[in-house]
Amino acid sequence: MGRPVEPFVDHELVDHHCHGLVGRDLTRPEFESMITEAEHPGPPGTTLFDSQIGFALRRWCAPVLDLPAHAAPEDYLERRAELGHAEVHRRLLRACGITTFCVDAGFQPEPLTSAAELAELAGGRGVDVVRLERVAEQAAVDVITGQIGMTHLADTVRARLESTRPTMVAVKSVAAYRGGLELPAQRPTDREVAAAARGWIHEIRAGAPIRLTDPTLHAFLIWCGVDARLPIQIHVGYGDSDIDLRRGNPLLLTGLLRAIAPTEVSVLLLHCYPFHREAGYLAQVFPNIYLDLGLAIHNCGRGSAGLLAQALELAPFGKFLFSTDAFALGELYLLGAVLFRRGLSAFLAAGVADDAWTAADAKRVARLICADNARRVYNLYNPP
Amino acid sequence: MGRPVEPFVDHELVDHHCHGLVGRDLTRPEFESMITEAEHPGPPGTTLFDSQIGFALRRWCAPVLDLPAHAAPEDYLERRAELGHAEVHRRLLRACGITTFCVDAGFQPEPLTSAAELAELAGGRGVDVVRLERVAEQAAVDVITGQIGMTHLADTVRARLESTRPTMVAVKSVAAYRGGLELPAQRPTDREVAAAARGWIHEIRAGAPIRLTDPTLHAFLIWCGVDARLPIQIHVGYGDSDIDLRRGNPLLLTGLLRAIAPTEVSVLLLHCYPFHREAGYLAQVFPNIYLDLGLAIHNCGRGSAGLLAQALELAPFGKFLFSTDAFALGELYLLGAVLFRRGLSAFLAAGVADDAWTAADAKRVARLICADNARRVYNLYNPP
Amino acid sequence: MGRPVEPFVDHELVDHHCHGLVGRDLTRPEFESMITEAEHPGPPGTTLFDSQIGFALRRWCAPVLDLPAHAAPEDYLERRAELGHAEVHRRLLRACGITTFCVDAGFQPEPLTSAAELAELAGGRGVDVVRLERVAEQAAVDVITGQIGMTHLADTVRARLESTRPTMVAVKSVAAYRGGLELPAQRPTDREVAAAARGWIHEIRAGAPIRLTDPTLHAFLIWCGVDARLPIQIHVGYGDSDIDLRRGNPLLLTGLLRAIAPTEVSVLLLHCYPFHREAGYLAQVFPNIYLDLGLAIHNCGRGSAGLLAQALELAPFGKFLFSTDAFALGELYLLGAVLFRRGLSAFLAAGVADDAWTAADAKRVARLICADNARRVYNLYNPP
Repeated sequence: MGRPVEPFVDHELVDHHCHGLVGRDLTRPEFESMITEAEHPGPPGTTLFDSQIGFALRRWCAPVLDLPAHAAPEDYLERRAELGHAEVHRRLLRACGITTFCVDAGFQPEPLTSAAELAELAGGRGVDVVRLERVAEQAAVDVITGQIGMTHLADTVRARLESTRPTMVAVKSVAAYRGGLELPAQRPTDREVAAAARGWIHEIRAGAPIRLTDPTLHAFLIWCGVDARLPIQIHVGYGDSDIDLRRGNPLLLTGLLRAIAPTEVSVLLLHCYPFHREAGYLAQVFPNIYLDLGLAIHNCGRGSAGLLAQALELAPFGKFLFSTDAFALGELYLLGAVLFRRGLSAFLAAGVADDAWTAADAKRVARLICADNARRVYNLYNPP
Repeated sequence: MGRPVEPFVDHELVDHHCHGLVGRDLTRPEFESMITEAEHPGPPGTTLFDSQIGFALRRWCAPVLDLPAHAAPEDYLERRAELGHAEVHRRLLRACGITTFCVDAGFQPEPLTSAAELAELAGGRGVDVVRLERVAEQAAVDVITGQIGMTHLADTVRARLESTRPTMVAVKSVAAYRGGLELPAQRPTDREVAAAARGWIHEIRAGAPIRLTDPTLHAFLIWCGVDARLPIQIHVGYGDSDIDLRRGNPLLLTGLLRAIAPTEVSVLLLHCYPFHREAGYLAQVFPNIYLDLGLAIHNCGRGSAGLLAQALELAPFGKFLFSTDAFALGELYLLGAVLFRRGLSAFLAAGVADDAWTAADAKRVARLICADNARRVYNLYNPP
Repeated sequence: MGRPVEPFVDHELVDHHCHGLVGRDLTRPEFESMITEAEHPGPPGTTLFDSQIGFALRRWCAPVLDLPAHAAPEDYLERRAELGHAEVHRRLLRACGITTFCVDAGFQPEPLTSAAELAELAGGRGVDVVRLERVAEQAAVDVITGQIGMTHLADTVRARLESTRPTMVAVKSVAAYRGGLELPAQRPTDREVAAAARGWIHEIRAGAPIRLTDPTLHAFLIWCGVDARLPIQIHVGYGDSDIDLRRGNPLLLTGLLRAIAPTEVSVLLLHCYPFHREAGYLAQVFPNIYLDLGLAIHNCGRGSAGLLAQALELAPFGKFLFSTDAFALGELYLLGAVLFRRGLSAFLAAGVADDAWTAADAKRVARLICADNARRVYNLYNPP
């Protein structure tokens, strides 16, 4: 693909939060349900291709598959099937200009490519992000199956995080998908953690699924990340229909963030939409808070440019990062990359055009946001 | 009026939610208090004509009354009085390009025109939307006056909804104006409904006004709509000073919407401002959720174009509808129609201009949003 | 400085809410921590100069110190030190075009210039705003030191507000910085106020700092303002990391505002970001509510133009005011003034360009918003 040259934003990207690719060909309903956060393709007479992301996909991905821009969905899917998922993904990933992928492999309804496989496809580098709740849930399984005692659950989590530390660059919390972000402002005591762990194990033994939702335990996990001095990614805002978006407002984290601030451990608020202004505020007033727009970028298509401008009202330019949050489809990496470049370029170019800042400053800021902020936060100069 | 031609959006509109016209001439304070959601014209030294909607009214309505665009408020009101309300309304309604009106006649502080009268004025067609709380309140009157027994309240509501079904295209909930949208996530049981109904009747007998505000009963009414398989309109967000806007956030409905989703009954979120991004999210992730911007369009005047772009960030284009929510004044129909056309046209044209989508797609989307989405949802091809 | 001429917005400003200047030279970390709401300059490798406000400062303030626009931070700070704070402040204040300053002198971590001193520097006029919580806290000190009895706390507050009345134009509440804006919808009774005052004094005697945080007492103070028939400024939304932004949503005030409305006493919502649309709604539906964007303007730099457009979606043009909320640094007055002029000018010019309103209306609205609304609300034609 001849990627159009974006003024100020035409260099490599570090994707500080994404997932793996699905390793098989897909039916139209499967594909359509994967391009957005909807579970179903929608009611009869409608198609999710008629949306910002659908139009963006036809515009930007079709040419990578040798089709004209704006190809019809049917033609796109036919050509995709013809090429096969491996070739399609190779082409799309190569076209992104992403050189580093920080991969959260903690949610896999079906097997997805690993960080290493993704990096190989793209000709870049892959590093791992560990999902905190998964570590805790694996420890819970070990308690249930009698491999460890209940009183060792917390220590086991701590030990496992410590042991995986050499191979990962960050931890991630999905509390927003579980009980929500209204987490305790005070660090839970060992006694509180032990009580919450006991309660959880009892519920599992009584038949509950192995799914952590307790706010004390979510907070405990985040503090484990703090203790390990690893950057902590927190899902905020926008997600699929499983989320209670109201409970995903980052302002609910204010007390917890205030408690973490003195440790200087970095906290990265992911996605944030439609609370990206709130997240930008937190990134301004707390020295260790960062944000991105993650999956809001590709889902909002051409509209994502407006989000970028809003997120950058208060957030210092050294505190904003690029990510695709791409999941399963190669298209989502390309859309995340292209739309981010275009939106950031539009933002920077408009400021240069009315002499609000210089072209040199615009270029410097683009490099920070596209790559250097992530390199600094995750120490990617010397990754594990 | 020579309506300026809007690229891509120059065809008929289906107004899926509006009210009737007031059938008399008005004083300036009366008129001024009807053009916005304010109850009073404002403090001395100010006028509500100095606002987005006031400027839009002078721009777009004055020419329909043979005045120059931007005529002074005094001149406008003088000419309006000279022509008389009937002629003014006839002219304004004819200038809208609305061919179908879905009319909620459930709030009438004074008698307003019916759907049929409105349709005749405009040269279009009128269909009815039934306000759920009104049906319940009429049943409560019947209990109080001894015409039905208290234990029959719920059944009476169900039966009356069923009996009016042939003549209406949708039901509507105004829970947002009463106790707010924090409604039960689980369908209330018959026993819970009966208890809530008893409590309500007792309150009325103890002197309370006949005004439904109980969340269980609001939810019951919505589930009546589900059972009748009628599209359900829900007031969300922006309204007058009676509303507690904080309780009108559509995210408060998440649990209820999740429960309704498997029934595939359509739910239409009305107005939504300033929570239109939140509503767009719901419309993306739930296959049966739709939204409009309703009265926010005319109230925000020229600023409404920005709202449209935000509402369409996540909402699939097959899930967004046109409505005026016009009430009492013919001006509000015209403003709703003109500003919607202009905003949607600007949105679509900008995408065509930078090659984000094709002109053919823009035209197709305009037709969906202006008319076809409503026709599909309300089955207006074969209305009652 | 040759201020660029802004179409429609090139006349004097009344700053209806600001603070004093710091009277000494500053180190870079001190300066950097004062330009935003962050307490610290941020993590190593970043600088708060890389932000909307940092870029705006280099663009607009550097020329006032005889540097080229966009001068590097180091050059700016060096030149600032060379000129000394007095000369820098004199130059910056003179360049603002602000003729009246309404000064809240109630927060002074170090001594700041008074309203009179500020006015002299700028060649304008200064008037006082009294911080309600400070009056109450001074009365609490008098109780603690035995100068007045505990039962006289409320009367003392009332009497002191009354006695300072001739010298002030408004009172101000910082409840948002304390317990938040969820204040009682009903006016607290004398008995409730007395009980809350007793509780507060007991806490102080038990060792608590003299810091009012009780919602009943915050509401009491606001009602004292109502009784004195003084305009009431209320901090809303955006502030530093001490604030719990979630508790600063103006919609939390809905009940209280509804109770105040019949008194016709003006209430001015300050800053409001990111809840400025919510504040605009309140300004539309309640005749006595006004708003500004305060410190959001200078903090959002070039992005502030978008905020202005959003705040003016619903707010009548007679209900929106200019303020800088400048604190400590002369730069913040200039940025507040320049960015406000530019944003308002862009908003008005865009409407003129597409014939949404006339140039004459644009000029008239600019005068209202920049000065006349404040003059009317605070009776600055005949100030104390």
